[in-house]
Amino acid sequence: MVRAVELAPILGDLSGNIGRITEAIAQAVSDGVQLLVLPELATTGYYLVSREAALAASLRTDAPQFTRWAAMLAPDTVVVVGFAERRGDIAYNSAAVLSSGGLLALYRKVHLWDEEKSIFAAGDETQPVVETPLGRIGVLICYDLEFPEVPRSLALRGAELLVVPTNWPLLARPEGEHPPEVIQAMAAARASAIPVVCCDRCGIEAGKLWTEGTTIIGSDGWAAGVRNSHVVTATVTLNAGAGQIGPRNHVIADRRPNHYAALVTGDEQ
Amino acid sequence: MVRAVELAPILGDLSGNIGRITEAIAQAVSDGVQLLVLPELATTGYYLVSREAALAASLRTDAPQFTRWAAMLAPDTVVVVGFAERRGDIAYNSAAVLSSGGLLALYRKVHLWDEEKSIFAAGDETQPVVETPLGRIGVLICYDLEFPEVPRSLALRGAELLVVPTNWPLLARPEGEHPPEVIQAMAAARASAIPVVCCDRCGIEAGKLWTEGTTIIGSDGWAAGVRNSHVVTATVTLNAGAGQIGPRNHVIADRRPNHYAALVTGDEQ
Repeated sequence: MVRAVELAPILGDLSGNIGRITEAIAQAVSDGVQLLVLPELATTGYYLVSREAALAASLRTDAPQFTRWAAMLAPDTVVVVGFAERRGDIAYNSAAVLSSGGLLALYRKVHLWDEEKSIFAAGDETQPVVETPLGRIGVLICYDLEFPEVPRSLALRGAELLVVPTNWPLLARPEGEHPPEVIQAMAAARASAIPVVCCDRCGIEAGKLWTEGTTIIGSDGWAAGVRNSHVVTATVTLNAGAGQIGPRNHVIADRRPNHYAALVTGDEQ
Repeated sequence: MVRAVELAPILGDLSGNIGRITEAIAQAVSDGVQLLVLPELATTGYYLVSREAALAASLRTDAPQFTRWAAMLAPDTVVVVGFAERRGDIAYNSAAVLSSGGLLALYRKVHLWDEEKSIFAAGDETQPVVETPLGRIGVLICYDLEFPEVPRSLALRGAELLVVPTNWPLLARPEGEHPPEVIQAMAAARASAIPVVCCDRCGIEAGKLWTEGTTIIGSDGWAAGVRNSHVVTATVTLNAGAGQIGPRNHVIADRRPNHYAALVTGDEQ
């Protein structure tokens, strides 16, 4: 069972936000959830006004809080949570992957959105594929998902499920349509036959609304979750065999990479 | 003005299908359409039983028919049509790009679906970016679109609009959802801020239904067309400036290709 909880962090309120995360973890453990995904920057809120403000509410990866959360987990369960990370004087928009053993992996957002470029340093390391008790989990954050290269690369590198902590500011969209970011996630799921778990946030911050677009997508590309207020829960099947989409077709094996050189050589106009 | 016409080719009826294409072109010319897109394999129908059957209904690229269609066109107008191509004893699932001057470009489908692998040879040349009087048009066919690498590569190589002649067999989908292939097209359009024109077919063939999913998508990722029976018409704006999606963000400039190596090196599990 997979769950994503659309928290409403309060800007800069580190201890209150930690409390909200702790509560979501406790509830998930009590409900037998195996994988819990929480939003981007769940410890700080989004509209941080400066690098200093981010650092003031940030955590180092050796912060005891991660150990405390890990200690709450049953064996073979995983939590992914977005947080503002401090490393010396540098702030990162990061995600922690936790298991009962502690901090299993760290990811620092590579593609930064808007004012994040003034606040955070961009990550230097490619989105990780993390070996977990549940399988290989690929981690990306929010704007990373807008680059089709990213979810596809994670699938090619062996990820069996993708998690996307995110903060999606509400955008206008035609009536009856999914949020555009959900369409990107559905396309990514279907293209590589891999489940994608997007955890957005809720609440109003700095007068702005969020999309509240949390969606758990199955390897067939369709939403698989049941929503109860801001908690979305689903049973998903990991990737095994899903890529074989016809007697003679496989979403990965049918690729012809020698035709894709433009993706890594950049703009060739 | 851009138009896609969901024809209903009759299997193997080359001369009848040519007539239907000619009619669609004549109507488009009369209506002042600048870009007309017609389905995959519009000259032959889809469920060809063998390579011999495909060859029997195929056209060589020097077939006088292409010259006749080109002669119908106003200057600065373009037609893209899918056809079975013969080159010696080899059949290809191809698309022709025509302007008033004649055959402007040819594309042979690179990613083949199912039984196509028994009938057609796969194209060896990457999907083309064609300089036309309307701008640079990227051409892909049907299953090509399922590989996010393909539309993205075309955009990176300078395409300002993508055309997708297609034959989408009807798949079950949850109520209220777009066809899954349309979701792929919407995601591709939004990811690169580029219009995508998908022309499906209609009619029943070999007892099978088609999706009739013809959709013209704007550079914002939303459907832009008006449907009148099997004719979808839209005004779309080419790519100029659409990629700048925020004061500090651009869908292409924000890419970090050194993190995308898995896309061209294949499966790195």
